[in-house]
Formats: sequence, C-alpha cells, structure tokens
Amino acid sequence: MKFKNARKDLGLKSKGRFYLKSKSPFAPKQYKDLYPKGFKIFTFHAGFKKKKDDLLIIVFDKTINVSCKYSLTSMPSAPIIWDKKNNKGKCKALIVNSGNANAHTGSLGLKNIDKYVKRLAEHLSCSKKEILVSSTGVIGEQLNPNLICKQISKLFFSKNNTLIDAARSIWTTDTFVKTSIHNIKILNKNIKIYGFAKGSGMISPNMGTMLAYIFIDCEISRRELKKLLANNIQETFNSISVDSDTSTSDTIMLFSNPLNKIKLNNQHQKKISKTLNLVMKELSYKIISDGEGVKKLIKVNVKKAKSESQAKNIAFSIANSPLVKTAIAGEDANWGRVVMAIGKTREKIFQDKITIKFGNLILAKKGERNSNVNLSKVNSYMKKNLIEIEVNLHLGIFSKVVYGNDLNNEYIKINADYRS
Amino acid sequence: MKFKNARKDLGLKSKGRFYLKSKSPFAPKQYKDLYPKGFKIFTFHAGFKKKKDDLLIIVFDKTINVSCKYSLTSMPSAPIIWDKKNNKGKCKALIVNSGNANAHTGSLGLKNIDKYVKRLAEHLSCSKKEILVSSTGVIGEQLNPNLICKQISKLFFSKNNTLIDAARSIWTTDTFVKTSIHNIKILNKNIKIYGFAKGSGMISPNMGTMLAYIFIDCEISRRELKKLLANNIQETFNSISVDSDTSTSDTIMLFSNPLNKIKLNNQHQKKISKTLNLVMKELSYKIISDGEGVKKLIKVNVKKAKSESQAKNIAFSIANSPLVKTAIAGEDANWGRVVMAIGKTREKIFQDKITIKFGNLILAKKGERNSNVNLSKVNSYMKKNLIEIEVNLHLGIFSKVVYGNDLNNEYIKINADYRS
Repeated sequence: MKFKNARKDLGLKSKGRFYLKSKSPFAPKQYKDLYPKGFKIFTFHAGFKKKKDDLLIIVFDKTINVSCKYSLTSMPSAPIIWDKKNNKGKCKALIVNSGNANAHTGSLGLKNIDKYVKRLAEHLSCSKKEILVSSTGVIGEQLNPNLICKQISKLFFSKNNTLIDAARSIWTTDTFVKTSIHNIKILNKNIKIYGFAKGSGMISPNMGTMLAYIFIDCEISRRELKKLLANNIQETFNSISVDSDTSTSDTIMLFSNPLNKIKLNNQHQKKISKTLNLVMKELSYKIISDGEGVKKLIKVNVKKAKSESQAKNIAFSIANSPLVKTAIAGEDANWGRVVMAIGKTREKIFQDKITIKFGNLILAKKGERNSNVNLSKVNSYMKKNLIEIEVNLHLGIFSKVVYGNDLNNEYIKINADYRS
Repeated sequence: MKFKNARKDLGLKSKGRFYLKSKSPFAPKQYKDLYPKGFKIFTFHAGFKKKKDDLLIIVFDKTINVSCKYSLTSMPSAPIIWDKKNNKGKCKALIVNSGNANAHTGSLGLKNIDKYVKRLAEHLSCSKKEILVSSTGVIGEQLNPNLICKQISKLFFSKNNTLIDAARSIWTTDTFVKTSIHNIKILNKNIKIYGFAKGSGMISPNMGTMLAYIFIDCEISRRELKKLLANNIQETFNSISVDSDTSTSDTIMLFSNPLNKIKLNNQHQKKISKTLNLVMKELSYKIISDGEGVKKLIKVNVKKAKSESQAKNIAFSIANSPLVKTAIAGEDANWGRVVMAIGKTREKIFQDKITIKFGNLILAKKGERNSNVNLSKVNSYMKKNLIEIEVNLHLGIFSKVVYGNDLNNEYIKINADYRS
C-alpha cells in the first residue's frame, strides 16, 4: 500500500497499463453480495489485463428473456454491432471482457466475436443467437478470441463466483465495486432485483450506458422488460455525466431470471418498476461517484423549464462545463459560470427571472446577484462533498436532475496516462 | 521575476484576483505596433483590477461606420444588450473595461452603462447611440460607473496610446498581446487593416467572439462591413475552442476608419476581404494559442463530410473532448478517443470508410487500426507543439478546420483559482 501511494504521489503510472487511481471518497463503507439463483457467474484472468480478472461468463440455467439498450454513438463497438444483429431477446449466456473494447476493429472484430461465441454455444448446446457479448477497455486493438476460448474450455471445472466478483471482473479505471440488491414481496413470494455495473471515464451515456447488468428474479415478457428499461433509464443512467464523452461501448442489459412465475397485475408491475428504478439509480449514482479523479459530486437541478428538453439541455450544460467543474474543484461558489453555462445552450429563457441556488443559499435572483447572501455560509457550503446547484427558470412546469463531478488534476493525470 | 515564478511553482495565487499564469509557449517572438491614424487610443487604470490598465477608450476623429457581432448566448451581458438596443451602425467612440464583465447584473447593470456613456457623449458632443461598450471579467458583480466617469474627465489631458497598449488594457488571463497588422495597396493608396483582441478562457465562440476590434483604413458602407464580417467569421473566430464554454460577453467589432475614400470595385472588395480574413485568422490563432494553460495546440481537419454542419459537429466534438485533450496533454496518440468523439455526435457516417491521421501518419483506415504505422514516428510526432488530427469521412465534399488545445493541470489550476 505504501509503495502504491509513493508511486501515485510521484505521478507515476503503474507498471502495467492501468494507472493506480486512488479510491473515490464516495466509496461505500459496505458492499452487499450474493450467489445468484437461476444462473452461474464465472470470472477468469484471460490475459487482457496483466494480473486481475478480466473475463466474465454468466450461464443461465434456462434460456431467458432479456432487453438491452446500447450507446447511441455512430461508432459502435463490435460487440454492440454483433448483439444488435444477432440477439432476438432470448439469452442463455453472457460474455463480458475488460481490457479491450473491441471497438473500431472492422470486420475482423466481428469475426473474433463469432469465434468465441461459437465455442461457448457448442459447450452449452445452444444457438449463437442466445449469447450476448460486451467488451470494455482500449479502443482500436484487435481482441484475441483464443484468450476467451481457452477459458471457455475450463468452464465446467470452474467454481461459481458472486455478484461482487462479476462487478470486479469488468473494471477499467473503477476504484470500487458497483452492485445493488433489493427485495420485494409479490403474492408472498420473495423477488430479488439486483445488478452490477462498471463506469469511471468516457461517461455521458446516451440511452444505454457504460456496462450494467440487472436481473429480476421473476418471469417477465420481453415486451414488458423493454418497457421497464425504457421507463426507468431517463432519470437514472441518462442523467449522469463524468466528462461529456459518450463511449463506443455503453450497454445495459435487463434479464428476467424466471425463478418465480407469477401472473403479474398492474400493481405488481408498478412495484417491480419502482424497485428496478431504485437499483438503476443506485448503480448510476455509484458510477458517477467513481468518476475518474472525482473529489466532489455536482447535483444540478433545473426547475420550472418550458420543456423537458430545455431542462435537460441546461442541466447537462452546467454539469459538463469545464469552467463550472473546475470552480467546484476549487471550492469557489462561482455562480457566474452557471450563468455562462445556461447561456451557451442558446435556450430561450428570461434572464431576469432566473434564481440560482447553491444548496439552499440564493446566490442570484431576478437576473442579478443576491447581495444579502451570507458569504461565510457560502464558503463553508463549498467545502462539502456534494454540491447542489439549483436553477429555477420560472417559465414552465418541467424539471431535470443530473449528476456530474468536479474536474481536477487527478482526472488529467489518469487520462493523460491511461490508454482507453 | 524570480519571485513570481517561485509563487507559481508553489501553485499559489497572486496577491490580487489574477492567477500568475505562465506565458504560453506559443507567444510570438515579436509584436508589431502602431499609433493609429483617424482615431486616438486612451488607456487607464480605472480600478477594476489592482494595478494594471483596465479601461480603454477609443475616440474617432469623425463618426464612422461599424458592424458588430455578439455572442449567441441566451444570457448576454449588459454591454451586449445595451449595444444591440442603442447602436445603429455609427460610432464616434468605444469604451471597453476589463476586470468586471457587467454580466447578469439586471437593470442596474444597464443603468450603470448609461451613466458612463452619457458622460462621454457630453464630453464629445455626440449622441449616446454613437458610443459602443464592451466589458470582460467577473460575471455577476455590479460595475461602478464612477470609476469610468472619473477617467473620462481626464480624457483630453491624457496622452495617446498604441495598439499594443489597447490590447493589454482588455486582458483577463491572457499572457501575450494579440494584435495583427496588414497593409494592402488599392489604386496606389496604402490601406491598413489591423486589430487587437483578447481571449484566454470561456472560449467557444458562437458567431462573435471574446473581444476583438478590427479597423479598415478605408470608407466602407455599413452594409458592406456587415458582409465582410459575416463572410470571414466562420473560418476564423468561429473555428476555435479553448473549453467549449461560450462567454456571456463575446464581441467583435469591425470599424471603417475613413482615411481613404475610394470607389471600391469588386476586385478591391475581394482584396480587402482577403486581408481582413488574414487579420481575423491571426487574431483567432493568437487567442487559441493563449488558451488557459495551453501547452499544445490541436488542429482538427475533418474532410469529405456529407455536409458543412456534419464536418463542423465532428471537428468540434474532437477538439472539445476532455479525453482527446488529456491524451494530447499526455503525448499519447490515442486515436481511439477520436473514434469515440466522432461517435458521440451521432452523425450518420460509415465507420468502415474512415481514415484517421495524426500529422501525416495514418493511424486507422477502413474502420480499423493501421498496423503498418511506424510507432516510433508516432511517438516522436506527439512531442510536437502543434498536433494535427485529420479525419477523412469519405462521404462528401465538405470539410472544416478547427483549433483547440490540450487540457492539463495548468487549466485546472487557473480555473479553480480565478473568479470569472
């Protein structure tokens, strides 16, 4: 540990490719874990990374329903192209590797996927179309499929792993485990809704996000799964941004793990949706809390906008502004930069109506500074870990909350060194 | 000098508000200067800054034609609101202050401008509508008009200053003077086209830009001035971005200084436009070369796009991506992040057609890595000051060149400390 810190203080890279990032101050104190029922988790060190596990294979007992969302990027990675082309909403197994994104790798990138998917399909006696794949890591390097095939051969002799093991095996520059587990009761049956995710940098999801895998221990139709995902994604994974950079590989998968077969009525579905929302919120909050170099979180709440898109544009413009992010890093309540970030959207607003608050301190109202604000209170507020910026446009009825984080030397250090 | 550097090395702020930014490596070796004919430059220390000149007053011998462009922000500063409301294309004098942007200052902000404009109009016996104003500096603080009025009283006892003095008096975090002077001959008459500008941070102009003032020593109609500005702004001031943050105060003014009265034919007008383009290019290049904390410049050239807007979106997406900018800072030819930045625009492109070059080294073509590239050449290319990224989409006939710069610790230091 001492050695690691010494290297970090000197601004040195680790021996391998991965920068030794210090742990986020938002790391949870406790992590919940479980051995899932209905499927098995296997993790391996395949050799994409120097030492740590970098391959996850999940095998379901039965072929189950799944719904996926992917990055809206126009340069999708090979796994996204492959999944979209092949998968029809049924899943027997999932293969995820870290250390190589298999992105911008052309037709060879797709052939390589085909090779390891074929191997697993043979092993499991299932169709290739029932296997989903994801990759995260370096863009532009061809992925060696044999590294994955080799581990597939060992699959049946391997021990099962837990949800936390799964979460760890897909890390890139993450510093803490991102899992979420919740229980509900429907018709006296216990139903678990849980998942794991990875994040860290290149994070400004545009519908799907980063990598996230969520399981509902209940039989749910594909149509219903799709609806559940669509209904809950906007205010969870689509409301966070580390650096405004949308990845080539963002993926979220929602699995129906048919441990319980219940005829779900409307109320049951609502209950499931509510808990799914909680799981998705926890995972996305954990992702933003572990943004590269994060020291402070920024919560931006835009209120009383004319439209949903206006609220969202302004909220992300503030959360993504380098000048706002550096001001927060410097613990400076520089609300003038919030003014700038509202303005750069070119949204039609009335400048003279706007209220800007940091926490519950009003810094500007009616288009100018609030000279009555207690400056020493403002200064001590800025020392907090979570800075809440509220902008009230006093125009309409729409609002949007998004999360971002500060921009500091640590982000620079990580990204000047790390090859993504 | 030693004392300044010592403080900088310790990461300390200067005693005043302004961080002692080290000089940009792109600072010119020589600066051209002149005493203009047809108008007088006066600079003062009015008291917005601790020590340095912070007020510029330009008085024209006659009332002349002017054309202005302003930030497209929806939160314009008071000077922009004032100018747009009052000025009708005729100008007798210009007042610019630094140290206070007079932005988001409500109706009092406008009243304060009225106060000092009225004072100058009385002094010059001209209409208030013939006076233009600009301000740059901190957002959200009321500007004390008496500081300007006091200097106006001294106007006629003050000595004239030069173009370089004018450029210096409007600095915020700039580290070198930004002037450009060119001469042309039309019908045997010497015509100067020249200007000065300030830049540094909060720079991603959206039509006008930062502050820039350009003079053509020739009588030109307002209509023609407007055309000249519109024709030359896209590939100059609208093609640079320090941090994607558009200011509340961006302004460019083009003055016809009627020293020469010539009946301009089409060819003369083209000659003037070409030289004006050069002046605007030099000023915008100097602004980006002095971007906050800049150590490297990034030139992004997107070729063969389907449309002008596609080329522009992709070029700015690359130049503004924090991950691309930090990779350049780290001297890492991380073209995978260029792939990401193309993708995040969601522009319709064909991934398998794209060529990506750094300098004249082809790093990716036909949708994948070029494994024949000489890596040691790539590594030594990345050590250069100016990194040229070329993306050929192989789709259409449109192209766009934009300039950005690296994102490094110096930018963070400046902006975590400086109150803009």
